Amino acid sequence: MTQQLSHAPVSVLGMGPMGRAIAGAFLAAGHPTMVWNRTAGKAGELVARGAVLADGPLAALDAAELAIVCVIDANAVEAILDQARAESGGPLPATTLVNLTSDGPGRARELAAKANDLGVRYLDGSIMTPAAAIGTEATRVLYSGPAGLFERHRPTLAALGGAAVHLGDDPGRAASFDVALLNLFWTSIAGLMHSFALAARQNVPATALAPHAQQMAGLVAELLPGLAADIDAGRFSGADSASLTSVAASLDHIVHVLEETGISATLTRTAKGTVDAAISAGHGGDAPVRLAEFLSRT
Amino acid sequence: MTQQLSHAPVSVLGMGPMGRAIAGAFLAAGHPTMVWNRTAGKAGELVARGAVLADGPLAALDAAELAIVCVIDANAVEAILDQARAESGGPLPATTLVNLTSDGPGRARELAAKANDLGVRYLDGSIMTPAAAIGTEATRVLYSGPAGLFERHRPTLAALGGAAVHLGDDPGRAASFDVALLNLFWTSIAGLMHSFALAARQNVPATALAPHAQQMAGLVAELLPGLAADIDAGRFSGADSASLTSVAASLDHIVHVLEETGISATLTRTAKGTVDAAISAGHGGDAPVRLAEFLSRT
Ligand SMILES: NC(=O)c1ccc[n+]([C@@H]2O[C@H](COP(=O)([O-])OP(=O)(O)OC[C@H]3O[C@@H](n4cnc5c(N)ncnc54)[C@H](OP(=O)(O)O)[C@@H]3O)[C@@H](O)[C@H]2O)c1
Ligand SMILES: NC(=O)c1ccc[n+]([C@@H]2O[C@H](COP(=O)([O-])OP(=O)(O)OC[C@H]3O[C@@H](n4cnc5c(N)ncnc54)[C@H](OP(=O)(O)O)[C@@H]3O)[C@@H](O)[C@H]2O)c1
Repeated sequence: MTQQLSHAPVSVLGMGPMGRAIAGAFLAAGHPTMVWNRTAGKAGELVARGAVLADGPLAALDAAELAIVCVIDANAVEAILDQARAESGGPLPATTLVNLTSDGPGRARELAAKANDLGVRYLDGSIMTPAAAIGTEATRVLYSGPAGLFERHRPTLAALGGAAVHLGDDPGRAASFDVALLNLFWTSIAGLMHSFALAARQNVPATALAPHAQQMAGLVAELLPGLAADIDAGRFSGADSASLTSVAASLDHIVHVLEETGISATLTRTAKGTVDAAISAGHGGDAPVRLAEFLSRT
Repeated sequence: MTQQLSHAPVSVLGMGPMGRAIAGAFLAAGHPTMVWNRTAGKAGELVARGAVLADGPLAALDAAELAIVCVIDANAVEAILDQARAESGGPLPATTLVNLTSDGPGRARELAAKANDLGVRYLDGSIMTPAAAIGTEATRVLYSGPAGLFERHRPTLAALGGAAVHLGDDPGRAASFDVALLNLFWTSIAGLMHSFALAARQNVPATALAPHAQQMAGLVAELLPGLAADIDAGRFSGADSASLTSVAASLDHIVHVLEETGISATLTRTAKGTVDAAISAGHGGDAPVRLAEFLSRT
């Protein structure tokens, strides 16, 4: 049974970099794979490897017990469901649709309700790793939605590689984690891009900064569990760590150097604005973890 | 000689969390240690461990061949030099002053010139690790200034633990790296604090998010050398990675969820502003590394 499921036919809707990586991983794992994309011409390499092109979303849903949709946002998923309904003229096949598109928890719940109304089973998921990691041990996917449904398709989803974590029955749960995690990722990447630009202006090549920047990003990772424990325990004292007042001084001179060298200081100034607000509220002597509490309060 | 230098007397000016950690590490390594702070009463524990309290900056500079200053910013260092000069009424001792205060490269060069004018030798340095790491293998300090001076004091500075990297003779060089690295660190921490606040609003405790967030921060570290190589080589194509258009869609829904749950979206909206500007300039199909080039150009 597991053996059979592990070669179960699958469909993949959405042929962006991530959808292509997902379809490629299913093909590599030996699954008969059907693919579809709104705009034609993106699946050539996959078809050459054995994927079958669907002529519409309905055909893709019809061809397999499990279909993945991975497109730009929840609106695009909704457009695809609408198109399938228009094609069918009635209810849709009882396929399990796993929506690996990133969007908010509210939208995930709405899509779950809409899919169920149309007769489609729905699981939500968030991919925490880049397209290049799909099919390797490095993949991390968070899922939520009915536990039984997840367990049933776990063997097939294993083709994506790495770790699959089920966070609960609420279809919005994976997205709740996802938005928080993507916010961390993209603000960090945005900060990093400013840092590379600033370094370049000071004749420091990106590759010269990289080993030290890697240390810094690693330091965030290393400190993170302790910061989380402090937040949950309400430990905000800055006695033995950098105080918010000291952080504001650092941010001040960073902003100054950014402005002096002509690199946009908006991101750093915005971060400093939050620190300043917390100091004004009387938290200047507290540790940076105070910001999490301060932000969730205001 | 090295033996002797390794127990050379040292002075530490500034008794914030970092100055105290530095003095503590010198004491632990067996160095006769003199300490001074603008405001009295911060060095009690260190004095109990054998540190000698100086009655002013001049006495601290006079007592050792090597003095560390670690205060809130370059203005504070300047105030301390001014106070020493007022106390002396003439030139200062030819002590090597290692300024481990964070500030910009221009300020480091100004302080080097000022110290030299007063007869003091000057090295600049930036501590890349938290106070708690000082004296352990985890410490990372970047130094710049005359190479010979650095080599001479390297054995004494080894008491801080971990890795000491000399970046060149320009006293501003360590600060150039420092501002870029601190910008990465603090924008990442600010993003993380927003993420914890957002998670809290959705009933996800910080400690539940932490393992996944740690993965995310680790991912930034892991991707970083490749991103740096792409930037230096001018490889900005987004064909197989997330495109800036896809990133903007992600940031859009993150902003939406932040606003919906009442957590400040200013940081994420600011990051999105940069992405939007790059898209408007025609880079929507490019990879996120395009931002470094875009920011350094505009
Ligand atoms: N790429 C990564 O490394 C990565 C990593 C983690 C998570 N993700 C997530 O994975 C999802 C897909 O990302 P991606 O990088 O593959 O590409 P993307 O640029 O986010 O999405 C492109 C896909 O969305 C489709 N699409 C857009 N609007 C549509 C609509 N109205 N109706 C139907 N289809 C529509 C596109 O079809 P057309 O070709 O017809 O335009 C294309 O298939 C996103 O939610 C992203 O956040 C991506
Ligand atoms: N703490 C960390 O984990 C950490 C990590 C990396 C780097 N750093 C850097 O290390 C430096 C020191 O940080 P910190 O955390 O120890 O504390 P801080 O809060 O940045 O600085 C406090 C120290 O600055 C002194 N000070 C402030 N204004 C002064 C003035 N006008 N004249 C003389 N002294 C003045 C204070 O003296 P009073 O007691 O008299 O106010 C106190 O000794 C900063 O540049 C920081 O960025 C710190």
